[in-house]
Amino acid sequence: MLEDLKQEVLEANLALPAHHLVTFTWGNVSAIDRQKGLVVIKPSGVEYAQMGATDMVVVDLHTSERVEGSKNPSSDTATHLALYRQFPDIGGIVHTHSRHATIWSQAGQDLPAWGTTHADYFYGNIPCTRPMTDAEIVGAYELETGKVIIETFINRGLDPMQIPAVLVHSHGPFTWGTNAADAVHNAVVLEECAYMGIFSRQLTPALSEMQQTLMDKHYLRKHGAKAYYGQPE
Amino acid sequence: MLEDLKQEVLEANLALPAHHLVTFTWGNVSAIDRQKGLVVIKPSGVEYAQMGATDMVVVDLHTSERVEGSKNPSSDTATHLALYRQFPDIGGIVHTHSRHATIWSQAGQDLPAWGTTHADYFYGNIPCTRPMTDAEIVGAYELETGKVIIETFINRGLDPMQIPAVLVHSHGPFTWGTNAADAVHNAVVLEECAYMGIFSRQLTPALSEMQQTLMDKHYLRKHGAKAYYGQPE
Amino acid sequence: MLEDLKQEVLEANLALPAHHLVTFTWGNVSAIDRQKGLVVIKPSGVEYAQMGATDMVVVDLHTSERVEGSKNPSSDTATHLALYRQFPDIGGIVHTHSRHATIWSQAGQDLPAWGTTHADYFYGNIPCTRPMTDAEIVGAYELETGKVIIETFINRGLDPMQIPAVLVHSHGPFTWGTNAADAVHNAVVLEECAYMGIFSRQLTPALSEMQQTLMDKHYLRKHGAKAYYGQPE
Amino acid sequence: MLEDLKQEVLEANLALPAHHLVTFTWGNVSAIDRQKGLVVIKPSGVEYAQMGATDMVVVDLHTSERVEGSKNPSSDTATHLALYRQFPDIGGIVHTHSRHATIWSQAGQDLPAWGTTHADYFYGNIPCTRPMTDAEIVGAYELETGKVIIETFINRGLDPMQIPAVLVHSHGPFTWGTNAADAVHNAVVLEECAYMGIFSRQLTPALSEMQQTLMDKHYLRKHGAKAYYGQPE
Repeated sequence: MLEDLKQEVLEANLALPAHHLVTFTWGNVSAIDRQKGLVVIKPSGVEYAQMGATDMVVVDLHTSERVEGSKNPSSDTATHLALYRQFPDIGGIVHTHSRHATIWSQAGQDLPAWGTTHADYFYGNIPCTRPMTDAEIVGAYELETGKVIIETFINRGLDPMQIPAVLVHSHGPFTWGTNAADAVHNAVVLEECAYMGIFSRQLTPALSEMQQTLMDKHYLRKHGAKAYYGQPE
Repeated sequence: MLEDLKQEVLEANLALPAHHLVTFTWGNVSAIDRQKGLVVIKPSGVEYAQMGATDMVVVDLHTSERVEGSKNPSSDTATHLALYRQFPDIGGIVHTHSRHATIWSQAGQDLPAWGTTHADYFYGNIPCTRPMTDAEIVGAYELETGKVIIETFINRGLDPMQIPAVLVHSHGPFTWGTNAADAVHNAVVLEECAYMGIFSRQLTPALSEMQQTLMDKHYLRKHGAKAYYGQPE
Repeated sequence: MLEDLKQEVLEANLALPAHHLVTFTWGNVSAIDRQKGLVVIKPSGVEYAQMGATDMVVVDLHTSERVEGSKNPSSDTATHLALYRQFPDIGGIVHTHSRHATIWSQAGQDLPAWGTTHADYFYGNIPCTRPMTDAEIVGAYELETGKVIIETFINRGLDPMQIPAVLVHSHGPFTWGTNAADAVHNAVVLEECAYMGIFSRQLTPALSEMQQTLMDKHYLRKHGAKAYYGQPE
Repeated sequence: MLEDLKQEVLEANLALPAHHLVTFTWGNVSAIDRQKGLVVIKPSGVEYAQMGATDMVVVDLHTSERVEGSKNPSSDTATHLALYRQFPDIGGIVHTHSRHATIWSQAGQDLPAWGTTHADYFYGNIPCTRPMTDAEIVGAYELETGKVIIETFINRGLDPMQIPAVLVHSHGPFTWGTNAADAVHNAVVLEECAYMGIFSRQLTPALSEMQQTLMDKHYLRKHGAKAYYGQPE
């Protein structure tokens, strides 16, 4: 079942090492078939070089049960499912420990929007979650990770499709998009902005956020009804 | 028309990822035929791996109209055209979001001339533009980007052929040269100097600019009537 | 003798440049056959590209004598042997001058546990040894290097199998594991955490260590009786 | 003439981009035949990909005249010759603008000996020259560059064969060795130490130099009569 989606998810997973976003097996990508209510996700702890489409695991969006596949799904599956349940426009999700996004996570700070590279993809700062409580960590940890991400977006009034990324405190980034490839694309951009942010602040320690007008201009020339970047579809 | 120039512009565009200056489609190169008053430029949002010479777009220097090509020209075309109109010696222009030049743009600072690597190519500091006004951003943004670059060079009395690079505030670098390949060359050097500048300042926070005599020596042994670097042409 | 172990040690040595952990010959890997009391180690100062399995040197765990092989063993052999003798669960050892772990060694600081990447592999801070005394340095230097590592673990009450890495003051890292490949794996993770640690502290200079609960969760979901990461073995 | 030496110099030049030490043509290597009093050096401004052994230029050690070759020798030839004349044990010289060594040059600071990686090759801090005077710069600049290097070693009482590297103020590094390949080797090590030094100081701003005893141990186990690193020759 879902052979095309499995292939998409496989290719998106393989794109992570190709973009230098993961070391060893430290990353996972999933995608969802909204009509069937099924999610395809990378198996846990399997090396990228050895994965095939048939290794992808199918889980039920609502019951979290494995529906197909002989391997355990990614240990982060419950986080992915929580995000798919809460945000109906998400089509694909990526988790990595990419170096510079993880640095911001470890530092426990939002990544400010400091330039048009950021504004071309993210319509505002990338939020860093609060630290999780001991109860959340010793409880259903991966599910609670999803909940703290959701809480972050709801409490701050952020639209996850306009800011398709989050920094989990002391952990690392999750990104998402309309499908698996789009989520990977956003993971690459986040890493690029995270790198540049570290040294932009080094050069100008009190650097203020970019102008809202400039953010509007760049985000909206690539996204939404008035977009004019690229070729007509 | 302009088949040779299209090939040059294609190759210059492909040189950007080869020199690790661009991620995805975040860069563009153009070149001009001054006699015909025509500019050849990369199409907007097309992946480098899929571009051919016939995808290059020809636009009129004065009317900005597309003269040939089925694709939309780069969204930054109006910036390129403004520079070609103002500075008659420019033969090729490059725009990237290369990491370290972009960091200086985001930090809103000029890149000081701190060594002979810089002085071999740039006869002074690389200027960072002022932030654009809201009116400029919501207006003809890309044209206004060109205008603020021009304003920067005129107000500071800089010669764009001696300092063939600029840092657009909160955005990223533009470089230029006598042709497309030369503009790419300058983009590589700018990125190198931008990298070294970040850490030169880290080591010596109050670092002063290099000696003018040393800058003269290095710039003028490679440029102008008394140059003696390289082989006789 | 020990042909399989020689091949393992060869491959682990070759994995060091593949993971960008060594320049020239600046690294060495060994592994032990506990039943025979023999250690297989890289020869000293031989280039990776020219090494074969038959170049590996076999030394006696207890006498330190070369038992097989025509080449001198790594100059760091005495350090490896000291660790094998003291810690009976170590199966393989790696020494590198990998850039960022070496930076923490040179800075003379422990690498704090600042995120789940660290906690997935290391159950606490990576200790940096005290500086060696002049007597230790002019004496049996390589053996004394092993002793100061052992002293560090004993004095701090650390379990070397839970924290399979150390930073030798003014020198560089040693890592170990259940076998040679596992020791290399830990060397890669250490380098990754060392990189991220430098810039995590840059962003948040007073960064405190991660929550103990979060460290427990991540370390114990991958190690020990209750591990649930990966596939059933 | 000197066909073997030309081949050595060619290969040493090609090793610079292979070790990521140069961008474009920003580096040069030479070697000397002491018996004949002739130096073989890279031609000026020629791309590495296009160079052959026959492009190497032969110059006279004493007269500085070109003895063989149709191309101009490197613009830095006078610097190389000054060093060969002053220091009779130098067999090969390298000049690069490698990123991190150049950063220390631009910052105008000596690179302190901060660890055994450094001490394995350099028996003390890598000196940075004083800034050159205007008279030196407008005069025989490249020759004066050699003189200021020599002055640095003499005034500080340094042995150029024990510290085979220098940082020219506001410019970049020169390294040397017993032959061209050895000089390249030292250029690689210098770059590695320069990188690590930047971030060692970032972690510990008041970092003191390494213990003299440790430097003696590491330098002397690889160099001189009592060396025991590597294989018997």
